[in-house]
Amino acid sequence: MKDLDTICSISSPQGIGAIALLRVSGQEAFEIVSKLFKNDDDFKILPANYVKQLNIYESELLIDQTMAVKYAAPKSYTGEDMVEITCHGSQYIQQKIIELLIKNGARLAKTGEFSMRAFLNGKLDLPQTEAVADLIESQSETAHKLAINQLKGNFSARIAALRKQFVDLSALMALELDFSEEDVEFADRSRLYHLLHNLKEEVTQLTESFKLGNVLKTGIPVAIIGKPNVGKSTLLNCLLKDDRAIVSHIPGTTRDTVEDNFTINGINFRFIDTAGIRLTDDEIETFGIERTFKAIDKADIILYMIDISDTSLEEIEKELLFLENEIDFIRKKLIIIANKIDMLNELPKHFTEWDDYEIVFVSAKRSVNIDDIRELLTQHIDQHHISDTTLLTNVRHYDIMLKIREEINIMEDDMAQKRPTDLVVIHLNSILNLLGEITGEITTDEILEGVFSRFCVGK
Amino acid sequence: MKDLDTICSISSPQGIGAIALLRVSGQEAFEIVSKLFKNDDDFKILPANYVKQLNIYESELLIDQTMAVKYAAPKSYTGEDMVEITCHGSQYIQQKIIELLIKNGARLAKTGEFSMRAFLNGKLDLPQTEAVADLIESQSETAHKLAINQLKGNFSARIAALRKQFVDLSALMALELDFSEEDVEFADRSRLYHLLHNLKEEVTQLTESFKLGNVLKTGIPVAIIGKPNVGKSTLLNCLLKDDRAIVSHIPGTTRDTVEDNFTINGINFRFIDTAGIRLTDDEIETFGIERTFKAIDKADIILYMIDISDTSLEEIEKELLFLENEIDFIRKKLIIIANKIDMLNELPKHFTEWDDYEIVFVSAKRSVNIDDIRELLTQHIDQHHISDTTLLTNVRHYDIMLKIREEINIMEDDMAQKRPTDLVVIHLNSILNLLGEITGEITTDEILEGVFSRFCVGK
Repeated sequence: MKDLDTICSISSPQGIGAIALLRVSGQEAFEIVSKLFKNDDDFKILPANYVKQLNIYESELLIDQTMAVKYAAPKSYTGEDMVEITCHGSQYIQQKIIELLIKNGARLAKTGEFSMRAFLNGKLDLPQTEAVADLIESQSETAHKLAINQLKGNFSARIAALRKQFVDLSALMALELDFSEEDVEFADRSRLYHLLHNLKEEVTQLTESFKLGNVLKTGIPVAIIGKPNVGKSTLLNCLLKDDRAIVSHIPGTTRDTVEDNFTINGINFRFIDTAGIRLTDDEIETFGIERTFKAIDKADIILYMIDISDTSLEEIEKELLFLENEIDFIRKKLIIIANKIDMLNELPKHFTEWDDYEIVFVSAKRSVNIDDIRELLTQHIDQHHISDTTLLTNVRHYDIMLKIREEINIMEDDMAQKRPTDLVVIHLNSILNLLGEITGEITTDEILEGVFSRFCVGK
Repeated sequence: MKDLDTICSISSPQGIGAIALLRVSGQEAFEIVSKLFKNDDDFKILPANYVKQLNIYESELLIDQTMAVKYAAPKSYTGEDMVEITCHGSQYIQQKIIELLIKNGARLAKTGEFSMRAFLNGKLDLPQTEAVADLIESQSETAHKLAINQLKGNFSARIAALRKQFVDLSALMALELDFSEEDVEFADRSRLYHLLHNLKEEVTQLTESFKLGNVLKTGIPVAIIGKPNVGKSTLLNCLLKDDRAIVSHIPGTTRDTVEDNFTINGINFRFIDTAGIRLTDDEIETFGIERTFKAIDKADIILYMIDISDTSLEEIEKELLFLENEIDFIRKKLIIIANKIDMLNELPKHFTEWDDYEIVFVSAKRSVNIDDIRELLTQHIDQHHISDTTLLTNVRHYDIMLKIREEINIMEDDMAQKRPTDLVVIHLNSILNLLGEITGEITTDEILEGVFSRFCVGK
């Protein structure tokens, strides 16, 4: 790996700040960075892992007073010689230092290129490097926990265990192939069936964990629907505002980028834009209703909001009937939010006694009973599953797992049809290859590009 | 200073990135940070300035794999014990580590609080700490150079030299006061006059350098005016786009925050919004014209744009006459931009021979002769002055200098009126105090708050 060129990047978040951090990696890293300092010997004699204040000059002009540290290969993130420079966080200075590094022989790193080198140098396996990207993107406690578990290698260990069982199966099959020359069917084929069946169950379980794993990572999709003026945006603001308030007191943790996300008990929820949905009869035919149903269909949880001061039970039941005809509610949760209780002296009996649906009585305007909604939202998630450390969270892993399940199906069919064992073995080998693609033991440029292109700059 | 509490902050720019940097400073810094690591001895025995990978836990839960480094007082930025932690740049992780630091006894730093401690501990004088804020904000080569010079102490040295001359003056006056008991006027009062006169000149020169120093720091204000459809926004895009192109190839140096700024030869120009200004007769009376004139008045350079394919010289002269009646052009530069030359076969002679004003013939649409505009824009700035390392760039220093000049005026008057020397000495002492306010030898909470509140978080 030693023939890779030297790369550099700004690794701290984009923009202006007190301090910015730049990284350089590659066999020329020490040599290139030393040229930035007036007295390059100061840097050359600097021991690894030791931080020193060094001033960067362009000709005679002081660019910045910086701190620099060397990491010597292989004891660095990438496994190569690396330098980290912390400078004042002016955009001019950040840009200038990058320019000086490039002028002296480094080139700008591609997204994820530091991590790719870490992978290529055996510092991390592929699911671990993928976990680094997830970790950086994690916005909630749960997403963070999933990424950390994967970074620690828990997921890789489960894949390794799975692989071992397929290897065992392969050994059994090889044995049968030896016997097959004698044209005798293998003595105990039932053991083969049994093993394969167990493996299929495990693969299926992993594959199905993706739905949960993925929404925990990206946020559980929630839709708020209801007629105009029932208080949808007041409720949304209620839910978002409290969350913002928690976050915003710590400077540097603004969450403006995820406008419609909020966290309850460490779980991230994501609001789907269902602007304009109206379920009244006279509007059903209007243009765009299909588009809105598609939006609702993306939601795992649907908050169906009504103005209880101005709605009859019959009307609601009619609307719900219509909704249930259009939307597949399997795996979805529907909660009725009966809003504007502050407009009533007491709750209408036909609503309180209504037990066809889950219903919460709230006043969004006065923030009454909003916590009940929060409670119901989190109940949707089986907390037991979250503690499962090997939830499938990555689309790439999921796609491979689907392929593996398909190969198992073919194997089962082949065996049921008593097709020749060497045919079955082809599928087994392709499963072993697929598992190798997950861990990165088998890689192609295409796989690597797919994995690392989703990284942020400087990692 | 050792009784200050321990502060912490995210010091890298806000948002998500590969890596974030957090700082802790104060006498409890080492103790508090050690509690974040599972095996706190690993951190406790860590020598200063030595970077080590240490994992942060909350109870048994791994929060992040981080790098930590200690800086021992007084060899740190603040002069106190300090720790720098680099973590993965997820907002969740950044926030979590700050929470853990606060839970263990640190508190969130106020803006500029690290730098204030550096000042209070004598690591930097006040103009130098102010230069740190300028450095972080610097967007252009020139703004950067001015900040670096001030950070290196060049400005402080000039103030010190000035102060020394006032002290000499004070010594002379003290001598006169001794003699005054004998009721004899001091033999050589002319030397006093001469000294004071020289000082007044130097103070005036410094004060006047503020106009240039300030615009170099914040950007030279430019207004583009002209009738609708003469090509104002095409020209603006031309000037901005080229600049964007230079910057945008380096990830992490986006300049979206300063939409209407651009840099030519290292000098920053800033466009003033003059939306809607029209100088045609029939529009003069319309609502808002005064507001637009005010906007023009803020500009140092006015680009007056005309459509040369559709305008007569008489019309332009009439408009300029009107403009000159309304705007004070002393210290302003007016450039006529004759646009749409691509619509003509040859330039009209009465325009090319017109030498009342500086005029450039361009096609904004086809980017013809735009460099001539760039050339004229930079010519406005006397390059000689920029190399002056002690340009006054700071409003606080400027305000104090104005007060000093006022005190000198009073002293001169007192001396001309032959008022008692001890009256003159009062003003001299107040000058010495004012100079002490610049360097920070004399500070009040009010001064410190004013200086440090404009810092960014984490510095």
